[in-house]
Amino acid sequence: MKDFTYYAPTEVIFGPDTESRVGELVKKWGGTRVLLVYGGGSCIRSGLYDRVASSLGEAGIPFTALGGVVPNPRLSLVRDGIRTAHDEGIDFVLAVGGGSVIDSAKAIAAGVEYDGDVWDFFLRKTAPMKALPVGAVLTIPAAGSEMSDGCVITREDECGDEKKSFSTNICRPRFAVMNPELTYTLPAYQTSCGVVDIMMHTLERYFTRGGDMYLTDALADALLRTVMTCGEKVLKAPEDYSLRASIMWGSSLAHNDLTGLRGQGDWAVHGLEHEASGLFDVAHGAGLAAIWGAWANYVVEEAPERFARLAVNLFDIPAVMSTREETLATARAGIEAMRDYFRSIGMPVNLTELIGRRPTEEEIDHMAAMATKNGTATLGSLRKLGLEDVKHIYNAAV
Amino acid sequence: MKDFTYYAPTEVIFGPDTESRVGELVKKWGGTRVLLVYGGGSCIRSGLYDRVASSLGEAGIPFTALGGVVPNPRLSLVRDGIRTAHDEGIDFVLAVGGGSVIDSAKAIAAGVEYDGDVWDFFLRKTAPMKALPVGAVLTIPAAGSEMSDGCVITREDECGDEKKSFSTNICRPRFAVMNPELTYTLPAYQTSCGVVDIMMHTLERYFTRGGDMYLTDALADALLRTVMTCGEKVLKAPEDYSLRASIMWGSSLAHNDLTGLRGQGDWAVHGLEHEASGLFDVAHGAGLAAIWGAWANYVVEEAPERFARLAVNLFDIPAVMSTREETLATARAGIEAMRDYFRSIGMPVNLTELIGRRPTEEEIDHMAAMATKNGTATLGSLRKLGLEDVKHIYNAAV
Repeated sequence: MKDFTYYAPTEVIFGPDTESRVGELVKKWGGTRVLLVYGGGSCIRSGLYDRVASSLGEAGIPFTALGGVVPNPRLSLVRDGIRTAHDEGIDFVLAVGGGSVIDSAKAIAAGVEYDGDVWDFFLRKTAPMKALPVGAVLTIPAAGSEMSDGCVITREDECGDEKKSFSTNICRPRFAVMNPELTYTLPAYQTSCGVVDIMMHTLERYFTRGGDMYLTDALADALLRTVMTCGEKVLKAPEDYSLRASIMWGSSLAHNDLTGLRGQGDWAVHGLEHEASGLFDVAHGAGLAAIWGAWANYVVEEAPERFARLAVNLFDIPAVMSTREETLATARAGIEAMRDYFRSIGMPVNLTELIGRRPTEEEIDHMAAMATKNGTATLGSLRKLGLEDVKHIYNAAV
Repeated sequence: MKDFTYYAPTEVIFGPDTESRVGELVKKWGGTRVLLVYGGGSCIRSGLYDRVASSLGEAGIPFTALGGVVPNPRLSLVRDGIRTAHDEGIDFVLAVGGGSVIDSAKAIAAGVEYDGDVWDFFLRKTAPMKALPVGAVLTIPAAGSEMSDGCVITREDECGDEKKSFSTNICRPRFAVMNPELTYTLPAYQTSCGVVDIMMHTLERYFTRGGDMYLTDALADALLRTVMTCGEKVLKAPEDYSLRASIMWGSSLAHNDLTGLRGQGDWAVHGLEHEASGLFDVAHGAGLAAIWGAWANYVVEEAPERFARLAVNLFDIPAVMSTREETLATARAGIEAMRDYFRSIGMPVNLTELIGRRPTEEEIDHMAAMATKNGTATLGSLRKLGLEDVKHIYNAAV
């Protein structure tokens, strides 16, 4: 850890019934005409949509609704949103949902202020220079998009969907409304997927060559342990406010850079998973759980002491590491313990469990080719991964 | 923990030589004419002043310098700054120093945009509605003012100085430049005062009736343990970058609200210390160390389980707490261990050690009267303290 910048300006409004303050918040942050982006029927059925709509109404703010965002959100909907925003003179994009909805809102917000095609940002042809302000009412703690600078969108294509991202501070939400009670009804599987996603946002940053930052490491340990414990307990107590609150706040802190100020992070597992969820349309968190162990075993020799540190701090595995062999053994015990944890919260630990059948060789070759098509320099930091490395990891994850 | 808001928009630029980016940062945040507020000669002697001046010069930004800020910063200098800012058409206030300098800069920034007397904000006659943007180059990690919403100023008065504060989001610095290398030359006493101040900002928030927030508690534990360990080690290794970096970043995170999202916090120790440093003009961190133990022993029965939790998590004291008596014993062992820690880093643990002589009965009566003159409702949360309570604590701290 030497240089870093930290910038997490999102105003967080946390607690029961906070969604009733959305109108006032949009107004405070300059919105006068809102595009309300949301996903499927649960937002309507739960009454959340109505509560948000009436809060906007009370604040005298007209809105146009754009529903239908799906997991692994689609570029086509983003383009629809940009058109609608232009047609309706929208000046604020409000996301009501989880990461997919917030990511769609960010892409729309940046696309509205750009003359070309929004996909240019994802292709890195150009970077957004302006964006409409975005606000979020979070319903699924997982992606951390509510405080992050990033967005991930999938472009549908006959030859295989393509999942890409861009990052910019100007897309960080102005405000994020977080009511843990909204997550009481999340299915167990989705709750666990969120827990894994939160863990992975911290772990990807944990594995880096950035050097020592004792405080960042300690905060990462604390967040991981707390979210893991709460994640296990909440499956038996889905309406425990304190458990839900800690997971929800963990989702934001795991991805607003707080737990990763050592360097750039690794992000290979995210890269590998994006190809899996692009191809099989599975939940991101489950995909991460299915791949992490194979990746960890493949790269553990690059940083055995950090994997061992994780084993000791997360799983109370004895700190035996006076030789490299001992350190590696401790590290590998930690990787096994992590897999056991994933199993304990109902997550898959390989691709077969993830998709319900063994992936074919062609599917693995396709994912490996996609994951490395921009060259090895873009995948991984602890160890730069090339095509053969990636094939090995996917095969080990079968 | 139920409701909270979290808003920490300051852009942090962290690392060696980051002060050379000040000009570019002021420009980015809209400054065209700067008031450069600083303290004493060390800023000049170290060459920092020159580096900041030349960075502003390279960015084409003229500035007016206002030096002479002292610890427990004075209202008179704030008023000077406001006059100068008006005269010179200043539109950005840049603080180069520690908490006293940043607090002075905040008060100036708010005072410039107010027609009345700036002390009105401290008397709560009115709240700032506008303020010039503020930036900070941090040289002393302690007060956390670089990311906080607060400022504390002392009004000189023949009948006894008066130390008061106000808080507003509009005074949070737009950016904070943090170069840990700038702290290599801090004297050991000042380093330890900073460590105590950082600890206290977390501890004041730790003792509250706000209920369970597992993640906040875990982050508070992690920050306390890390800063305490680094604080002990850095006395023997004052030029260890990683130790200095963790303390510096800890200063910001301890006071940007991250570690205190359970409720309002207690803040009695700060209130009691303000009277001591107002009267004796001692270092704030040392004053906090001198008073904390007496306060803790006086209020421990209000929340024995939280004091015991601290004992277990910070000092590895065995978690014996099956009865109230056991819990209290564990809690009290933790309070003693905290005092031992203060001693180990060269901090006073009572008022006599703090000021070098036994305080007189009149001095204690004066401090007690001042600390409670706004009524008991304003001092403490775990236990509301009245005049007799406060006298008892000061006497126990003699």
